[in-house]
Amino acid sequence: MALIEIGAAAKAAAASMNRLTVGKKNEGLTFVAEEIVRCAHEILEENQKDIQCAREAGMKESLVDRLTLTKERIGDIAEGIRQVVKLEDPIGETVSMKMMPNGLQIGQRRVPLGVIGIIYESRPNVTADAFALCFKTGNAVILRGGSDAIHSNMAIVRVIRAALREKGLPEDAIQLLSDTSRETVREFMRLNEYIDVLIPRGGAGLIKTVVENSTVPVIETGTGNCHVYVDESADLDMAVNIIVNAKTQRLGVCNACESLVIHDAAAENAVPAICRALCAHGVEIRADERAYRYAGEVKKEIAGEAGRGAIVPATEEDFGTEYLDKIISVKIADSIEEAIRHINYYNTGHSESIVTKDYESAMKFLNEIDAAAVYVNASTRFTDGFEFGFGAEIGISTQKLHARGPMGLLALTSTKYVIMGNGQIRE
Amino acid sequence: MALIEIGAAAKAAAASMNRLTVGKKNEGLTFVAEEIVRCAHEILEENQKDIQCAREAGMKESLVDRLTLTKERIGDIAEGIRQVVKLEDPIGETVSMKMMPNGLQIGQRRVPLGVIGIIYESRPNVTADAFALCFKTGNAVILRGGSDAIHSNMAIVRVIRAALREKGLPEDAIQLLSDTSRETVREFMRLNEYIDVLIPRGGAGLIKTVVENSTVPVIETGTGNCHVYVDESADLDMAVNIIVNAKTQRLGVCNACESLVIHDAAAENAVPAICRALCAHGVEIRADERAYRYAGEVKKEIAGEAGRGAIVPATEEDFGTEYLDKIISVKIADSIEEAIRHINYYNTGHSESIVTKDYESAMKFLNEIDAAAVYVNASTRFTDGFEFGFGAEIGISTQKLHARGPMGLLALTSTKYVIMGNGQIRE
Repeated sequence: MALIEIGAAAKAAAASMNRLTVGKKNEGLTFVAEEIVRCAHEILEENQKDIQCAREAGMKESLVDRLTLTKERIGDIAEGIRQVVKLEDPIGETVSMKMMPNGLQIGQRRVPLGVIGIIYESRPNVTADAFALCFKTGNAVILRGGSDAIHSNMAIVRVIRAALREKGLPEDAIQLLSDTSRETVREFMRLNEYIDVLIPRGGAGLIKTVVENSTVPVIETGTGNCHVYVDESADLDMAVNIIVNAKTQRLGVCNACESLVIHDAAAENAVPAICRALCAHGVEIRADERAYRYAGEVKKEIAGEAGRGAIVPATEEDFGTEYLDKIISVKIADSIEEAIRHINYYNTGHSESIVTKDYESAMKFLNEIDAAAVYVNASTRFTDGFEFGFGAEIGISTQKLHARGPMGLLALTSTKYVIMGNGQIRE
Repeated sequence: MALIEIGAAAKAAAASMNRLTVGKKNEGLTFVAEEIVRCAHEILEENQKDIQCAREAGMKESLVDRLTLTKERIGDIAEGIRQVVKLEDPIGETVSMKMMPNGLQIGQRRVPLGVIGIIYESRPNVTADAFALCFKTGNAVILRGGSDAIHSNMAIVRVIRAALREKGLPEDAIQLLSDTSRETVREFMRLNEYIDVLIPRGGAGLIKTVVENSTVPVIETGTGNCHVYVDESADLDMAVNIIVNAKTQRLGVCNACESLVIHDAAAENAVPAICRALCAHGVEIRADERAYRYAGEVKKEIAGEAGRGAIVPATEEDFGTEYLDKIISVKIADSIEEAIRHINYYNTGHSESIVTKDYESAMKFLNEIDAAAVYVNASTRFTDGFEFGFGAEIGISTQKLHARGPMGLLALTSTKYVIMGNGQIRE
């Protein structure tokens, strides 16, 4: 099917979804969850084809694992949809209906965005997740998944469409681009007449491609060069605890800590303690000149022991790198001002944390750091739709427009002004 | 100065503006208003150069008028800035700080967007207006005005920068691109590292160019193919009143009505009455086949009388045209459903109004029309930041992301999450 037809079908579905009650939407989602479980066998069969192709193409096993579905993982997908059923539907609420001096009543009503395009990489669970969030908020979705997962994605979408059809709901609420070629995705990114917003989900390369080539409005998600700053007055145990958690609790995620900034006045004690703890987790530390010196003792301790991390000199490039790995950079700063300047220069606008006992430092950091989430005395790993209490997440926005930080259902909505009069004209 | 330097200067100014109190910002704006009045002579002299160039180039007098400043118009510009001083500053408010089960406090704080780029056409008053709104919300602005107004714009910006400098405020809070070439504006639209959002203000061509070429997030403003739908049950006097107001009160604006849809059951009486009233205002009516027939009588009445408008057959193209002129298209619909389909197909997502006495029709129209502002029994001309009570307007958004409808100060802000903990880590 041509892209324009896909777009038109999505737009038509969106128009009718705008009129669905939340009861009807929840009924549809619940049935979709059941059908996904019932058709697990069919989905797993198709998933096997993707896995086989991936192995034949020599894909790394860690990536093959991300691609792989099991009966249990399909159960999780269905459970994820049931969780979305339980969330409150934001659509239809009219906030602050005001009475104007001329008698006009003006209110702002929450409405779906319309048609959402999602461009993602190889994880097939995103297919059902994204659909559930879009459907709950009355949006039609057009998915462009990675070519690696095409068989799995097509199977999941087939099951969802059949379930919607059976319930008398618009099946074009979800469509998948079966053609995953570069030309098609580029055309997709310029389908302004049919798509209201594009959300890329994936690595830095994917996001950059979408931002640079899309004429449809984009919500930029994700890359996170996140910092923890250890202030002069920091509680050292707390700092070590937070840093180890932020770096090692999960490596490949955007809210993991990639870089430390340590106040020089605290560095003599803090650097060895932090390095020792990180090295015990096998982390390689890329230290600026002063930090390297402060870490000298630890360097000796770990010398020659396998799996005990490493301490090496940092290059300028390290401070701008999102490792997504057991690596962290360390910079020493002479003041909180220098730390804030450094962080605001190198960060990607994701999550930044200060460890401090000082009120002024805490307030300064909260006020002056420019990022989606700014923390005092907590791990950056909390930047997440579930941890923030949204009950779901479509991604983490690192841009300032529309939505910033973890995006729940509200990020998938727009508003319209509704105005009720009795014949008012403008003088 | 190279674009990158301009971007970097704006970003640095934005970082320091984030820390200005509202008192300091208002003091700066008040002084800018005074200085604009004091330096009126200098601005008018430069404006004369633009006017002379425009006349030499054969610019239409209506456009020369838009370009022209007078002592009075400069007074209005200063008064506009003083109005912005009086508005409440949305920056710094933290909304809904929640206490999470683990003791983390999570709140959302309103912050400036950062650096705003504004691309506009020849009206030099936009220069000061846009600055005032951006400055009040702590944003640095980079302006790219039309080449026609370059002398006027440079003079206004010079006065504003000098005033800021004198008050110890960052003068790079406002910068103007002196190079108005196409190549420079294209580069400007791809300055993602320095610009957080671009707002084009002007005609359809300008907006299309920005949407198609910008990689910086854009807030699409304004073209308005606005409709009034006359329902079967409409009060005919009210309909005539609203239509005449929406079409003729001001012609060249985006919230003017460009197209009518009339229920067939009302058309026999409504079409002649509406056509008669519009023709009395010199409006040319482009009617579909049925409307043309219903208007036959009026066509005879006005035949041969100068300045009495005209009634001509519409082409398909008419229904998609924003005339910004004394022209209107008319379509007859057999049902409200057909009317809604027609409007949702041809509209530009701006402002749409129904005239009706019927509750069901009113609700249906409010629910199903997809536009920034949907009216019952009122003129589309009310879609405006001042009429909506925002006290200011930077433009009217016709996209669904970030801001939709008239944009006041709030549209120039973003949020960041501030999170206060006491050592929390993620399990």
